[in-house]
Amino acid sequence: MKIAILGATGDMGYGLALRLAQKGHDIIIGSRQEEKAEIAAEKAREEANVSNISGTTNAAAAKGAELVVISVPTAGHRALLEELKAILAEKPVLDITIPFAFKPLRYAPPSEGSNALETKAILGEGSRVAAGFHTISASLLTDLAHPLSGDTLIVGDDADTINTVVELAESIGLSAYNAGSLVFSGVVESLTPMLIGMNKRYGSNHLGITVTGF
Amino acid sequence: MKIAILGATGDMGYGLALRLAQKGHDIIIGSRQEEKAEIAAEKAREEANVSNISGTTNAAAAKGAELVVISVPTAGHRALLEELKAILAEKPVLDITIPFAFKPLRYAPPSEGSNALETKAILGEGSRVAAGFHTISASLLTDLAHPLSGDTLIVGDDADTINTVVELAESIGLSAYNAGSLVFSGVVESLTPMLIGMNKRYGSNHLGITVTGF
Repeated sequence: MKIAILGATGDMGYGLALRLAQKGHDIIIGSRQEEKAEIAAEKAREEANVSNISGTTNAAAAKGAELVVISVPTAGHRALLEELKAILAEKPVLDITIPFAFKPLRYAPPSEGSNALETKAILGEGSRVAAGFHTISASLLTDLAHPLSGDTLIVGDDADTINTVVELAESIGLSAYNAGSLVFSGVVESLTPMLIGMNKRYGSNHLGITVTGF
Repeated sequence: MKIAILGATGDMGYGLALRLAQKGHDIIIGSRQEEKAEIAAEKAREEANVSNISGTTNAAAAKGAELVVISVPTAGHRALLEELKAILAEKPVLDITIPFAFKPLRYAPPSEGSNALETKAILGEGSRVAAGFHTISASLLTDLAHPLSGDTLIVGDDADTINTVVELAESIGLSAYNAGSLVFSGVVESLTPMLIGMNKRYGSNHLGITVTGF
C-alpha cells in the first residue's frame, strides 16, 4: 500500500514510517519543506534498512498515496488540513494527532471536540477520516530492536477506512479494535495525556491500555 | 468505613453497595425517598447476605458517612449536588456517574467538562472530589457469584481521597490506579459509552480496560 505520512519528523509519524516500511508498504514522508522530508526519508531508510521510503512536499505526498496519515503538531493541524483539503477529501485519512496543553498537562481539543472531528469538519461530510494509534508509545514504535505489541482503538465513520487501518495496525504487531464512530475520537485522543501523566507517577515511559472482557 | 451511596437503585451503585458491604464496610443507601432507600437496603442485605446495609434519605445518608459515593442518574446530578452542597463540601466524595447521550450513544459532559468537574465546581475549591469505577461493568459488579476483577482509573485533586478510593477498589478485587487530577475525569468518564458501543460490536457485555507497560 502507498502511504503518505505528513509530519513524520515527530516520533509517532517517524516510528510508523519505519514499522510500515519494514512490512513492505511504500512510505512517502511529507513535510512543508521538501528538503526536510528527503532528509527524514534518508534517515528512515537507513534506520529501517529498507529502500521503500521517500520524501517530498505534503501536497505531493498526499496526492500520490492511497492512505494519508496526519501526524503534524497540533499547532499546524488546522492549517495543513485546510491547505490540502481538495486532495484529502478524496482519500482515506488516518489522523493520529493529539491536542495537548501543558501546565497542567491535559487534553485540549479544538471546538469540534477532537482533532479528528476538526479534520472531518474541514474535509466535509463525504470524507473518510479515521483516528488511531494514540496510545501506542512513540518510544516503543521507534525502537526497532523490539517487536511492537499493544492495543490500539480505531475510530471512524467509514467502515472500509477503519478496516484498512485495523489491518495496517495488526500487520505491525498491534491488536487493533474498531472503537466506533468519530464521536468517540475525543475518548481515544484524550487517553494519551492521561497515560503520559501516569508514566511519571508509575515510573514507566510506555504505559498503554488493553481492552479486556472479550 | 461508613460509606453513603446516593443513588444505589441503579446497577453501579447497588453493585458497589453489595461488594463493599461484603468487605465489612457500613453502607448507607441514600435516596430522595426514604422508603425507596429502605427497600433497596433490605434487598441488598438479603442478596449480599449481610446486615451492614441501611437506607435513608440522601441528606441523612451523606451526613452520617465518612465517604459519599455519587451514583445518581445524570439528569439529577447537578440538583443533588446543589441540594447537599453544605454537607458534601466537608467530606471525601467519590463521583462514579457518567453523562451519556443517546442516538447516537456518546459522552455528553456538562459545560464544566465532566460530571466530576461539575461536582467540584458546585462543592467549591476546598472540596475533596474523586472519580472512578467508570469502566467496571455493572453486570460483573452485581454478579456476586463471581469474584470481581479488572482495572479502574481513579482521578482526583486530593491525594488522601484518591488513596482512600484506591484502597476501597482494591479491597473488592480491582486493580486501581491514580490516573491524575480531575482534569482527566472526562477521559475516564468517556471510556464507558465507547466500551458499551464496543460491547455490541464484539459480542460482550463487560468489556473493560487494563493499563499495561508498568
